Amino acid sequence: MTTLSVFLDVPLATAVDFPLDVYREDPSPQKVCLGHAGCHTDNADEIWIPPVVQKILLQIPQDPTLDHEYIRELGIVEFTKTAMELVIGKNNQAFLDNRAGGVHTIGGTGAVWIGAEFLHRWYRPNHSTPAIIYIAEPQLGTLGCIFQVAGFADIRSYHYWDPIKLLVDTDLFVAELQNAPEGSIIFLHAPEEIGLKPSEWRRVASMMKRKHLFPFFDVSAQGLASGDLDRDAWAVRLFVNKGFELLCAQSFSKNFGLYDERVGNLIVVTTDNPTLIRIHSQIAQLIAVTWFGPTSLGARVITMVLTSPAHFYEWKQSLQTLVKRIMLIREKLKEKLRILGTPGSWEHLTRQSGVHSFIGLNSSQVEFLEKQKHIYLLANGQINICSINSKNLDYIAQSIHEAILATTCQIPSQLCMMADQEPEKSFIDLSNSS
Amino acid sequence: MTTLSVFLDVPLATAVDFPLDVYREDPSPQKVCLGHAGCHTDNADEIWIPPVVQKILLQIPQDPTLDHEYIRELGIVEFTKTAMELVIGKNNQAFLDNRAGGVHTIGGTGAVWIGAEFLHRWYRPNHSTPAIIYIAEPQLGTLGCIFQVAGFADIRSYHYWDPIKLLVDTDLFVAELQNAPEGSIIFLHAPEEIGLKPSEWRRVASMMKRKHLFPFFDVSAQGLASGDLDRDAWAVRLFVNKGFELLCAQSFSKNFGLYDERVGNLIVVTTDNPTLIRIHSQIAQLIAVTWFGPTSLGARVITMVLTSPAHFYEWKQSLQTLVKRIMLIREKLKEKLRILGTPGSWEHLTRQSGVHSFIGLNSSQVEFLEKQKHIYLLANGQINICSINSKNLDYIAQSIHEAILATTCQIPSQLCMMADQEPEKSFIDLSNSS
Repeated sequence: MTTLSVFLDVPLATAVDFPLDVYREDPSPQKVCLGHAGCHTDNADEIWIPPVVQKILLQIPQDPTLDHEYIRELGIVEFTKTAMELVIGKNNQAFLDNRAGGVHTIGGTGAVWIGAEFLHRWYRPNHSTPAIIYIAEPQLGTLGCIFQVAGFADIRSYHYWDPIKLLVDTDLFVAELQNAPEGSIIFLHAPEEIGLKPSEWRRVASMMKRKHLFPFFDVSAQGLASGDLDRDAWAVRLFVNKGFELLCAQSFSKNFGLYDERVGNLIVVTTDNPTLIRIHSQIAQLIAVTWFGPTSLGARVITMVLTSPAHFYEWKQSLQTLVKRIMLIREKLKEKLRILGTPGSWEHLTRQSGVHSFIGLNSSQVEFLEKQKHIYLLANGQINICSINSKNLDYIAQSIHEAILATTCQIPSQLCMMADQEPEKSFIDLSNSS
Repeated sequence: MTTLSVFLDVPLATAVDFPLDVYREDPSPQKVCLGHAGCHTDNADEIWIPPVVQKILLQIPQDPTLDHEYIRELGIVEFTKTAMELVIGKNNQAFLDNRAGGVHTIGGTGAVWIGAEFLHRWYRPNHSTPAIIYIAEPQLGTLGCIFQVAGFADIRSYHYWDPIKLLVDTDLFVAELQNAPEGSIIFLHAPEEIGLKPSEWRRVASMMKRKHLFPFFDVSAQGLASGDLDRDAWAVRLFVNKGFELLCAQSFSKNFGLYDERVGNLIVVTTDNPTLIRIHSQIAQLIAVTWFGPTSLGARVITMVLTSPAHFYEWKQSLQTLVKRIMLIREKLKEKLRILGTPGSWEHLTRQSGVHSFIGLNSSQVEFLEKQKHIYLLANGQINICSINSKNLDYIAQSIHEAILATTCQIPSQLCMMADQEPEKSFIDLSNSS
């Protein structure tokens, strides 16, 4: 082949940080992956899946009434309805007014993507200028990409987390909202895991109302932060009840253990039914060109769980069991590190809840764990609590202890982190294209 | 709710033409849908699905080695490899050179979408100006949308079909390719159904080589045109063997009967392995922001069929049985119309092959069928041959006969069609957005 490629100028794109890839290639018997995207059982390599979901997965192929015909763009109506009710509540006024509706998407990412595409095309708060989007700093790299590819040119970060005290800083959060230009979009990833109290969410909502900021929620693991589905949806319901127009992406990967089925829902809440219909018509067109229609299996499973009181009860029990395990792991890790006398406060481990956690390690400590201990996690120090189990807990605690002692800087870990951590920037380089 | 919506300016988007929707709402017992997207059995409302696929669908949930973990952006490697081999052949030099590779997508539409997004960002044949894309006139409305939303500004149509003689017109096709600006992309939808002979494809390929035109194939129903998988892939293999760089979208909806599982593959053929790796890295980033990763069930079924000689044989037999039924329906309809003395030549019904066919009715005849006969099809007169069965054949033939007699224009149907058919234009109106 001597012909030159027409794609000579295409550069190699930066690979997404996925610790599982390196972990899988490591032959060491000690190796640990703390960067799983999903929830695992106490058995390291086993995905957690609620027993009721496993049961229904066996039933569905036996059901002769279910065929494999195409599903229309907006998806299975019963699924989008019950999925939406899970977040905004069955008797929410917006739902009774027919001004809230769901769109069945390819996973939570698909919901964010379609929301981003729609807002980029149709959201013009100040008529002339395109909208600005604010994303919390830890998600700027991963989720910022979605908005960048969708065409947003002005993507900014906000902060609600004090990395010194390892605490939520509502004053900082509200001040940043106050400084945002009117009409900006505020992307609120995993509101169930942010850790704001109801009174703090009310302050945030008031400031957003005052500044006409547009909320775009991303509920990624409802039920897995507090173990209570309603409590985890509290923030979204507050905004809906305060009369906000909003978008809310929902993912069912973690709470149903169905990562590969790619089931998501994009909730649109607006002011009236005709507006909802017009928005849905535009979204249907975007879906028709992107993936034509959603997949059925996962949505059928989820609908069967959510519409049967017995299945629903069983699923909720499973969520609570998993959440109890997550809290227990957090407590045990904190205790181990205290017993070892590891420098730094580890109180944040139990003050936070949910599957993912910033453990408070800096990038050289993360590198130490990877190179010296065969422990793989995201470069920003975020770990999946479910990746810790009874067999690897001691090894992980001991390794974290050694990582902190081995790094040259002898001040507490969180101060080190501040010193050498650059804001994550892994946007797609579009400089050669437009 | 008295607040004004921020989405006041969002217009209602034109709904996609989907005859099944109107059909489902019609209470008439006589009603017929000729606009199914997929293949049906002789039992009108039953989706055709190969028996071996049904069997594997029952086995997969029982397999304890298969979990529901996320699948990486480019998908299941064994699936993309075997799927690609189905089109370009197991021993194709491009595959042996490691310069051809597949990307597992959400259906055939997802493959076209990702291809369109990639080409829009990275294909610059003349360095400064963005590429022009040519789409065959019948698909301009439906597939043109994908390229328009992906950002292509210059979308043109080409013609290979003589609507008077109801025949492929290779001279016209080649002349249009000759007139296309160098480096333009030529989108070749369903090459297996176009009906060009090998010598005609060679003329097309030579002209495309001379004008440096970039082929983007879309193999939507391999095996369902001729009943022979290799014959249906002949055109793509010719281009690969002639050293073209190309993209080829594959859909598995029709030939596996798995419409709702959304399984597609995007084949990239380039000049060398490093270029393929760079292209794949860019595509992986696009997928990460759009749907994060593909779904597993359908791809697992397809891989099991394609890698097991026994399953593969069984599947090929099923395809041949379906193709025989399609040809039989075409012959029977032609015979019925001849016996009725319906004006016009119906030779084109059996000269064409495959699932979809332009039956040669104009829009007033389509309207007559819908209003007077409860028969629903696409406005452009395209029908799904599989929607005709032993129970509705007589009624359909009689209704087509009456539709042609009832329309005022008494010249043969294909001439009427020329007179009142406007080129289809149903692009998304982006005039209010940018």
